[in-house]
Amino acid sequence: MNSDNLLALGRLVDQRYLQPALGWRRGFENRLSHLLSQRRLPEQGWSEPELELLIRELALLDMNNANSGSCIGVGEREGRVVCPLVYRRHFGLAHGIGRSGDVTAGQPKAAGSSVINSLTNSLLGDWLRQFGCPKAAKCAVLIPVATGMALCLCLLSLRSSRPSNAKLVLWPRIDQKSCFKAIITAGFTPVPIEPLLDGDQLVTDVTAVRSLIEQHGPDSIVAVMTTTSCFAPRVPDRLADVAKLCAEFGLPHIVNNAYGVQASRCMNLINDASTKGRLDLFVQSCDKNLLVPVGGAVIAGPDAAVVSRVAATYPGRASASPSTDALLTLLHLGRSGFARLLDQRAAAYTRLRDGLASLAGRHSDCVRLLDTGKNPISLALCLRGSGSSSGGGDPGRLGAALFRRGCSGARVVAGGDKRVSIEGYEFQGYGAHQTAYPFAPYLNAAAGLGMSETEVDSFLVVLDSLLTKEFRQREIDSRVADADEQGDNDYSKDQLTEDLG
Amino acid sequence: MNSDNLLALGRLVDQRYLQPALGWRRGFENRLSHLLSQRRLPEQGWSEPELELLIRELALLDMNNANSGSCIGVGEREGRVVCPLVYRRHFGLAHGIGRSGDVTAGQPKAAGSSVINSLTNSLLGDWLRQFGCPKAAKCAVLIPVATGMALCLCLLSLRSSRPSNAKLVLWPRIDQKSCFKAIITAGFTPVPIEPLLDGDQLVTDVTAVRSLIEQHGPDSIVAVMTTTSCFAPRVPDRLADVAKLCAEFGLPHIVNNAYGVQASRCMNLINDASTKGRLDLFVQSCDKNLLVPVGGAVIAGPDAAVVSRVAATYPGRASASPSTDALLTLLHLGRSGFARLLDQRAAAYTRLRDGLASLAGRHSDCVRLLDTGKNPISLALCLRGSGSSSGGGDPGRLGAALFRRGCSGARVVAGGDKRVSIEGYEFQGYGAHQTAYPFAPYLNAAAGLGMSETEVDSFLVVLDSLLTKEFRQREIDSRVADADEQGDNDYSKDQLTEDLG
Amino acid sequence: MNSDNLLALGRLVDQRYLQPALGWRRGFENRLSHLLSQRRLPEQGWSEPELELLIRELALLDMNNANSGSCIGVGEREGRVVCPLVYRRHFGLAHGIGRSGDVTAGQPKAAGSSVINSLTNSLLGDWLRQFGCPKAAKCAVLIPVATGMALCLCLLSLRSSRPSNAKLVLWPRIDQKSCFKAIITAGFTPVPIEPLLDGDQLVTDVTAVRSLIEQHGPDSIVAVMTTTSCFAPRVPDRLADVAKLCAEFGLPHIVNNAYGVQASRCMNLINDASTKGRLDLFVQSCDKNLLVPVGGAVIAGPDAAVVSRVAATYPGRASASPSTDALLTLLHLGRSGFARLLDQRAAAYTRLRDGLASLAGRHSDCVRLLDTGKNPISLALCLRGSGSSSGGGDPGRLGAALFRRGCSGARVVAGGDKRVSIEGYEFQGYGAHQTAYPFAPYLNAAAGLGMSETEVDSFLVVLDSLLTKEFRQREIDSRVADADEQGDNDYSKDQLTEDLG
Amino acid sequence: MNSDNLLALGRLVDQRYLQPALGWRRGFENRLSHLLSQRRLPEQGWSEPELELLIRELALLDMNNANSGSCIGVGEREGRVVCPLVYRRHFGLAHGIGRSGDVTAGQPKAAGSSVINSLTNSLLGDWLRQFGCPKAAKCAVLIPVATGMALCLCLLSLRSSRPSNAKLVLWPRIDQKSCFKAIITAGFTPVPIEPLLDGDQLVTDVTAVRSLIEQHGPDSIVAVMTTTSCFAPRVPDRLADVAKLCAEFGLPHIVNNAYGVQASRCMNLINDASTKGRLDLFVQSCDKNLLVPVGGAVIAGPDAAVVSRVAATYPGRASASPSTDALLTLLHLGRSGFARLLDQRAAAYTRLRDGLASLAGRHSDCVRLLDTGKNPISLALCLRGSGSSSGGGDPGRLGAALFRRGCSGARVVAGGDKRVSIEGYEFQGYGAHQTAYPFAPYLNAAAGLGMSETEVDSFLVVLDSLLTKEFRQREIDSRVADADEQGDNDYSKDQLTEDLG
Repeated sequence: MNSDNLLALGRLVDQRYLQPALGWRRGFENRLSHLLSQRRLPEQGWSEPELELLIRELALLDMNNANSGSCIGVGEREGRVVCPLVYRRHFGLAHGIGRSGDVTAGQPKAAGSSVINSLTNSLLGDWLRQFGCPKAAKCAVLIPVATGMALCLCLLSLRSSRPSNAKLVLWPRIDQKSCFKAIITAGFTPVPIEPLLDGDQLVTDVTAVRSLIEQHGPDSIVAVMTTTSCFAPRVPDRLADVAKLCAEFGLPHIVNNAYGVQASRCMNLINDASTKGRLDLFVQSCDKNLLVPVGGAVIAGPDAAVVSRVAATYPGRASASPSTDALLTLLHLGRSGFARLLDQRAAAYTRLRDGLASLAGRHSDCVRLLDTGKNPISLALCLRGSGSSSGGGDPGRLGAALFRRGCSGARVVAGGDKRVSIEGYEFQGYGAHQTAYPFAPYLNAAAGLGMSETEVDSFLVVLDSLLTKEFRQREIDSRVADADEQGDNDYSKDQLTEDLG
Repeated sequence: MNSDNLLALGRLVDQRYLQPALGWRRGFENRLSHLLSQRRLPEQGWSEPELELLIRELALLDMNNANSGSCIGVGEREGRVVCPLVYRRHFGLAHGIGRSGDVTAGQPKAAGSSVINSLTNSLLGDWLRQFGCPKAAKCAVLIPVATGMALCLCLLSLRSSRPSNAKLVLWPRIDQKSCFKAIITAGFTPVPIEPLLDGDQLVTDVTAVRSLIEQHGPDSIVAVMTTTSCFAPRVPDRLADVAKLCAEFGLPHIVNNAYGVQASRCMNLINDASTKGRLDLFVQSCDKNLLVPVGGAVIAGPDAAVVSRVAATYPGRASASPSTDALLTLLHLGRSGFARLLDQRAAAYTRLRDGLASLAGRHSDCVRLLDTGKNPISLALCLRGSGSSSGGGDPGRLGAALFRRGCSGARVVAGGDKRVSIEGYEFQGYGAHQTAYPFAPYLNAAAGLGMSETEVDSFLVVLDSLLTKEFRQREIDSRVADADEQGDNDYSKDQLTEDLG
Repeated sequence: MNSDNLLALGRLVDQRYLQPALGWRRGFENRLSHLLSQRRLPEQGWSEPELELLIRELALLDMNNANSGSCIGVGEREGRVVCPLVYRRHFGLAHGIGRSGDVTAGQPKAAGSSVINSLTNSLLGDWLRQFGCPKAAKCAVLIPVATGMALCLCLLSLRSSRPSNAKLVLWPRIDQKSCFKAIITAGFTPVPIEPLLDGDQLVTDVTAVRSLIEQHGPDSIVAVMTTTSCFAPRVPDRLADVAKLCAEFGLPHIVNNAYGVQASRCMNLINDASTKGRLDLFVQSCDKNLLVPVGGAVIAGPDAAVVSRVAATYPGRASASPSTDALLTLLHLGRSGFARLLDQRAAAYTRLRDGLASLAGRHSDCVRLLDTGKNPISLALCLRGSGSSSGGGDPGRLGAALFRRGCSGARVVAGGDKRVSIEGYEFQGYGAHQTAYPFAPYLNAAAGLGMSETEVDSFLVVLDSLLTKEFRQREIDSRVADADEQGDNDYSKDQLTEDLG
Repeated sequence: MNSDNLLALGRLVDQRYLQPALGWRRGFENRLSHLLSQRRLPEQGWSEPELELLIRELALLDMNNANSGSCIGVGEREGRVVCPLVYRRHFGLAHGIGRSGDVTAGQPKAAGSSVINSLTNSLLGDWLRQFGCPKAAKCAVLIPVATGMALCLCLLSLRSSRPSNAKLVLWPRIDQKSCFKAIITAGFTPVPIEPLLDGDQLVTDVTAVRSLIEQHGPDSIVAVMTTTSCFAPRVPDRLADVAKLCAEFGLPHIVNNAYGVQASRCMNLINDASTKGRLDLFVQSCDKNLLVPVGGAVIAGPDAAVVSRVAATYPGRASASPSTDALLTLLHLGRSGFARLLDQRAAAYTRLRDGLASLAGRHSDCVRLLDTGKNPISLALCLRGSGSSSGGGDPGRLGAALFRRGCSGARVVAGGDKRVSIEGYEFQGYGAHQTAYPFAPYLNAAAGLGMSETEVDSFLVVLDSLLTKEFRQREIDSRVADADEQGDNDYSKDQLTEDLG
C-alpha cells in the first residue's frame, strides 16, 4: 500500500488510532529500504506478518500474478499454475529463477522472483562473511540443487579453465557417497587419499597430496576437493596446507563445507585457507546450515567471476523454491537469530560430549569416547572398552535399537575389513574413512544445528539404557534376538544402521 | 511497500523487467485508492494475490502484529494468539471489532481490524443498494451473529423507543424456528398470523394484521416482523401492504430477508415497502447471500440512526471473522461477480422448476408441482397426484432416501395434523406454515445461490429414480423396509426429514 | 488414512523405513482415541502436523466438503464458499454450529463441525475443572459472542424462571461498559452498588447487597451479577458472601469472570462460592483466557440444565470459528501448556509488581504503588507521591505518552469528580469504580496471560524514563507541550487515555 | 483417522448425521486404496480437502514431523525447519528425496517423502502412457531440475556406456539456449545440423544427420538430440527417421520434448520413433506440461534401466518440492482434467491460428501468416506482406509494444544476418533456427496449456490495433518514436524482444 493509501485509511478509522500504526509501518518501510540498499542480513529478524507482506508484494510483481486484465500470455511458458494448493504454497511464484544463460539472470516475466533470487544471493554472501568467512566469501550464489549436485556443477564449471587432459580430482577420502559421486558424474576420476591417524583422529595426509600432484603432474588434475564438516573420528581437512599446495601448483581447490557454517572452526579454516593459499569455491548445504527443506546449496568463493561461472554452467531455469525458503529464513532469523542458533548448537555439542564422556565412564568396560576435539560437530563412541570386545554382541544391533527407539541420525560404523564398491572403486573399511581404522566399531552422534537440550538428554538416557540392558546382559540379549527373529527377520540391522547416515 | 522501495527494487532486477510490473502495481494502488475513497463495491473482482496483499497490509496495522520491539502489552487483552495455526488463519487479526459502546466503533489497538470493519459495512450498504434496495439500504452493518440472533438484537434495539408495556410482535407465521425464537429470547410475545391460501400459495393475511393491531392497540406492540425468503408454498409477505399499516399506526417494521438478496423479487419488495410505508430494518444472512461460512448477518435500513442503534445494542467487542470473510468475498466477486452468481441462480431456478414440472408430468399419478410462482427460490412438489394418495407409502421416507443418496436440503413436509410446541406455543401442521395446508405432504427443493446445473440435473435424476422405484413398486418397498428395519432402526426418518431444513 | 491404506504404503517405500512411522502414527491414533472417549484436555499438547491432520479429517465430514459426486445441494443453505481465500482459512468448515433450537445441537449436513462443537465444549469444561473450578464447572458451553453479549444471553435465559415483574440486576459497581450494557440490552434495570474502601483496595459492600435485596424484594430482582477479574484498586468481589445471600433469598447469581481463568485466585473464589452458596453461571472470555482472537465466551456453571438453557436461548445457528480456534488451542497447549502459561503469567505479575514498587521507591515524591494484593492481575500506581500532587502536570498526558511509545493497555484513571453518563445512568468518578476514590489519579498496568519478561522490563524502562523526564522537568514539559500543539492538536490525550482500556 | 476413531465420533454427534459422512469418507479410502495399489492417474480429480488430507497424512510419516516425544535427532541432518512460514508451505516435508546413490531411493527418516517420490514417478509414467506414449514411456522419473539441466544429466548418464573418445552430440539446430548449453555443460561438443526449408516450414535434414554420423564415425558420437516442441516456423524433428539412423548405427537418441505433452502430435512422434527405431530418453518440463512452478523435469523412456541410470547419476539428495507439486496437480486434475486441458489448448490453437489468418488477411500488405501446420503449438506471422517490406519500421518495436501492453511470450525474430556467439559457437540468423530463413522478420505466438479464449481474443485485438496504428501510419510512428526516446531510452527494444522467449 503506498503512502497515499495508508493515509486514506484515516477515512475509515480514527486518526488517533491510525497514527501509531503508521509509525511502526514506517519502521517496516525503513528496514525494507535498508535491506534493499545494503542487501545485508538485518540484525534483528523480521516478524511473520512482515515476511508475509514482503513475499506477497514481490509475488505481485510476477506477470502471472497480475490482475487478469493486465496480462495476456501467448508464449509457451506463462507461469500458469492449475492446482490451487500448489499455487498458494508458492505464493504464486511460478516462473522459477534464471534464464537460459545463467541461473542468476533476471527474468522479464518475473520481476518479483528475480528480486528474490538476487536478494537471496546478496544476503547469503553477507551471512557467510559475517559468520566466519569475511575474505573467502566475496560472492555467493544459491543453486537449487543439493550439495552433491552442487559440487558436481563446480567441477563442471572448471573444465574449460583446465587443460583438456585434466581428469583427476584429488580427494582426501571421506566416506560419504554424494561427494564421491559428484566427481564421477562430472566425468572425472577421483583419486582418494587415505587420512593419517593422529591419536584417535583421522587427519589429512598433506604429504600424500603433494606426492600425488607431483606424480600425476598438475596438468592432469582438475582440482583438489577437501572437506570440512564430517563424521568423527575424521576431522576437517588441513585446508590451509592444501590451499598452499594448490597455490604452488596452480590447482583449483574446492571445499565441501556441507554443514560447516554451523561451526566457526570450519569457517575459520576456509577463511584462513583463502588468505594463505588457493581456495576457489566452497559449497554448503542450505538445509543443514539454514534449517530449510532439502533443495539448495550455496556456492561461494573469493573471486566473483569463478562463482558466477558455476551459476552460468547451470543450463536453463531452475526452481525458485530454495531461494524463497532461504530468503524467508534469513529474514526470519536476522543476524542475531542465527548467532543464537550457533550458540545453542555449541552448547548442545558440549552437553553431548560431556554426557557421552560421563556415560563412557560408567560403561568403561565396553565403550570409550574417542578423543576427536578437532571435529566441532560429530562425536564417536568406540564400542570396545577395556573389557570384552564390543560387548560380545553385534554392534550393528545397537544402531537398529536406537532407531527403533526414535533416535535418528546415530549410526554404528563397523569398519574393519568391510569392502564396499562404489561406481567401480573399492573402499576397504567403508564408513570409517580409512582402510583399517583401529578403534572401530564405533557409534557416531552429532550436535547439529537446531538440536535441543532435551534431545541430547533423551539420547543419553536411551543409549545408557541400551548399553546397560542390551550389551551387558547376555541372557536378555538372546531373548530379544528370538523376538527379533520372529518379528522382523527381513530387517537387516547393519544394513539399516548404515542407511541412517 | 511504498513507492520508494518499489523503485529501489531496480537495484536488484533489470529496470526493463521491473517497469511493466510497476505498471500493474500502480493499477492496484489506483483501485485501492478508489475503494478507500468511494467505499463502493468494485465493478471487477480482485485477484487472490491482491486480496492477500490487502489483508496482510491491514493486519500489520494491528498492534499485536507490530514488530516485537514496537509494542509492549500491559493490558488485560493484548491480542496475543498462542496457537500458530489459529494465528495464521486469522492473518493475525486478533482484536475483534467494536468496543464497549458499539460494535461499529474503532479500536485504538487495532487500526487494521477497524478499517476492515468500517470498509465492510460501507461495501455491504453499496451491495444492497446495487442489488435491489437503492432506497431501503441507506445504511448497513454486519453483526457477527447469524440471522436469528440478529433479528433478536433488532427487537432489543427497539425496546427503548416503544412504550414500556409494548410486548407483542405481530408475526405472519413462517415455520422456521430461529426467527420465532428471536422474539422469545428478546423477551417479547409473538402473535402468529396464519397465512391465506391463494391457489397453491400461502400469502400474507393483511386484513388480519390490521385487525390485530386494532385489537391490541399499537402501544402494546413492539413491531411487526415480516419475511421475504421462505419455503414454498409460502411466498414472500406482502411487504408494502404491511409497511403501509406500520406507517398508519406508527409501528416499527422488521423484515426477515434471510436469503433474499439472492432474488431481485425479495429485494424489490423491500425497496418498494420502504418507499410506500414504514420499514425500519431488514436483516439478511451473510452465509446464504454471500457464500461465506455461517457467522454474520447484515442489518440494514433506510434510517442510519435506527441501524446504528442495533449496532450500539450489542454490548462489547465481537469477532472480526465474519467481517473479514465478507470483505474478502465482496472484493473477490466485485459487482460483476455477484451479478453472475445471481444470473446463475436464476437459471438454476428455471432449470429446477422446469425439470420438476416435466418430472411431475411423467409421474402425474403420484406427484404434482405446486404453482408457487411468487416464490423465486423455493419449489414444492405435492406428494399426492391424481392417483392414490402419496404413493401409498410414508412420505418421510422419500426425504430419508434423498439424504442417503447425497441430496441435502430437500425436505418432506408432512403437514396435516402434526402439532409442534415451541417455547410453549403450539403450532398445528408445523412445517407447512399453515394449520391445515391442503396440498401436504410435499417435497421442498430450492435453487440457492451457487447451485450448479449439474446439481439440478443430478437431483432430478435421483428424484426420478426414487419416484419410479420406491413410490410405485410396492413389492420393492416392502423389501427395502425390511432392510431398513435391520440396518438402522434407530434412524427415525421423518425426524431426519424435518431436520434437513 | 485407514490402517489398510497405511500398510499399503509399504508397496511404495521400504518396509523398514515405514515401520517406525507407523509406530508414531499409531501413537497419534491412540491419543485421538483417548481424546474422543475421555473428552478431556490431553496432558501434552499436540504438534502442528497432528492438529492439521485432525482438522482436515473433521472438515471432510461436512457435506459441503464431500467430493462433488457425493453431494447435491438443493436447500437454501448448502455451505458453499465462493472465495477460495475464505474457504481455506476455515478449512472448508462453512455450516457453523447449532441449529434453530440450540447452539449446542448437531447438524445433519455438518458432522465434522458438530464434532468440533461438542468436543470443544467437553474440553472447555475439563479445562475449567482442572484449573480451579472442579465443582463449579459441571458443564461448559462456548457461545460465539464475546463476554458482554454472553452475559446478556445469560440474563435473557433467566427471564422465564423469574417472576414476570423481576427487572432489577444487583451489580457491585465495576467501571467497564460491556457488562453494564449487557444488563440494559437484556431489558433489565441495573442497580449499581458502590464498593467499600479497604486500605487502598475497593471491596464488595456485602451489607449493601443485603439491604438492597430486602429493600426491593427478591421477586423484583432478576439476578445478582458479580465480577472477579477487574482493574486495581478494585479487587474481585466477595463471591462466597454474595452467593450465600443469593442462596438465602433464592436469587440467581451470575459471575463475570472475564479474564479470571488466568488467576487461580479468581477461580478459587468461584469454586468456593458454588459450594458455600448459590452461583448459577460464570462467564469467561475465550480470547483473554485462551489467547485466541476475540469472538467467543465460555459459559459454565454447576448445573448443566442452567447452562444448557443459555445455549438454548441463542436463536439459530452461529459461527463455528471460535469453537475451532478454542479446540485447536486447547489441543496445541494441552494441560501442561496451559499450566506453563499460568506460571509464566504469575511470574510476570510478580516481576511487574516488584518493578513498579522499586520504581515507586525511586520516584517516591510523585508516585506510590497502591497496595492491592487481592487483585492477582492488575496493579495501580497512584500518580501522587509524597511531594507535589501529580507532578504538577496533566496525568492524562502520561497515558498518551505511554501509548506513543508503544505501551498498549496501560491507562490513566483520573477519578475525582468526573461524571459519565451511560445509557442514562450517571457515574461519578467514572473509571475508578467509586464515586470518590481518594488515591486517584492512578495508572493501571496488568500482567495478562502471555505477557513476557521482556514486556515487563521494557514497560518499566519506558515508565521510568517518562517519570524522570516528563513529570519532573517542567522546563522540558513546556517545550514538549509546544511541540504537541503543533503536531497533533486534534489528539485529545485524556480521551485517548480512557480509550486504551 | 482410523476406522475405530471415525466410529468413535458417534459419541460426539448424532449417528444419523455421521452415517452419510462415513459413507463418502469410505469412498475416499477406496479411491486411495486403488491409487496405492494401481499407482495410475485417477479418472476424476480429487477435491482440495482430499488433497489436503492426503498430504498431511504423508507428512506425518516423516521423522521430523513426529510428535516431539517420538523422535530424537542426533545426526547432522534432521529435517528441522526454523522458519514457520517455510515449514508450513512445505507441509513439513523437509528431508527431500533420494539418497547418496540415487534420487529415486527411499529415505529411512522420511517414509512420507519417499512415498510421494515413488508415487509421483508411477503416476507420471501412467500419465505419459495415457497421453500418447503407451510404448515409449515404460518408466518415468521426476528429476528436480528444469529441462536444460535434465538434458545435461541424461547426457552425463550416457558417458559410461559410450566409447571414451565419444564427444560429439549431433543436434538438429534449434535456437534455444538451454538445450545447447546442456551439451556444453556435460562436457561434450555439439554438432548443429541446419534444418531444411519445406514451404514455410523448417524440417530436419535427415540426410545431413546420416552424413555426419558417417563422417565422424559412430564411436565419436555420444548421442543424437532431437526436439519436438519448438517455435514455428521450425517444426518437430523427424523423430522416426532419426531413430532409425540411431538404431542402424547403435547411437543413443535423446528427445527434448520440453512442452510436447501438450500436443498429441509430439507424443505420437515419440511413441512412433520408439517402435520404429532407437529412442533412449525423452525429457519434458513439469512446469509447461503440468502447470506447476518451474523446478522439475520428467525423464522417460522405453527401457527402465536407462531411465534409472539417469536417476542414479544425480549425486545426493534433492528437493521434494517438484514431486509434491506434481503429485498434487496430477491428483487434482485426474485423467479427465488433463484431457480437458488438452482440449482447451487445442481449441485455443485453432482460435489463435484462425484469428491470425483473418488478421493477416486484413493487413495483407504488411504481414502474412506462415504455413506451419506441422507445428501444433506455435505460430509465426511474417512481418512482411505483399506491400512494403516490414511496414518500413523496426520490427523489434512491435515486440516491445506488445510487452508494454501486457502481451507476454510473443517475440519478434529478426533473423537475417544476425550473429550470436554462444559458448564460443557462432550462429547466424540466431532465433530463426536457420542461417538465412527467408521469411524473417516474423512474430511468434503460441497456444500454450492453460491459455484461455479471452487471452487469444485480447491478443488479437492488441495486435490488430498495433498493426493498424503503429505499422501503417508513419506519421504517428515518428511521434511515438520521439516519445519513446524521451521516456525510456535505456530500454533497448530488440534486446527486450529477444528476451521474451
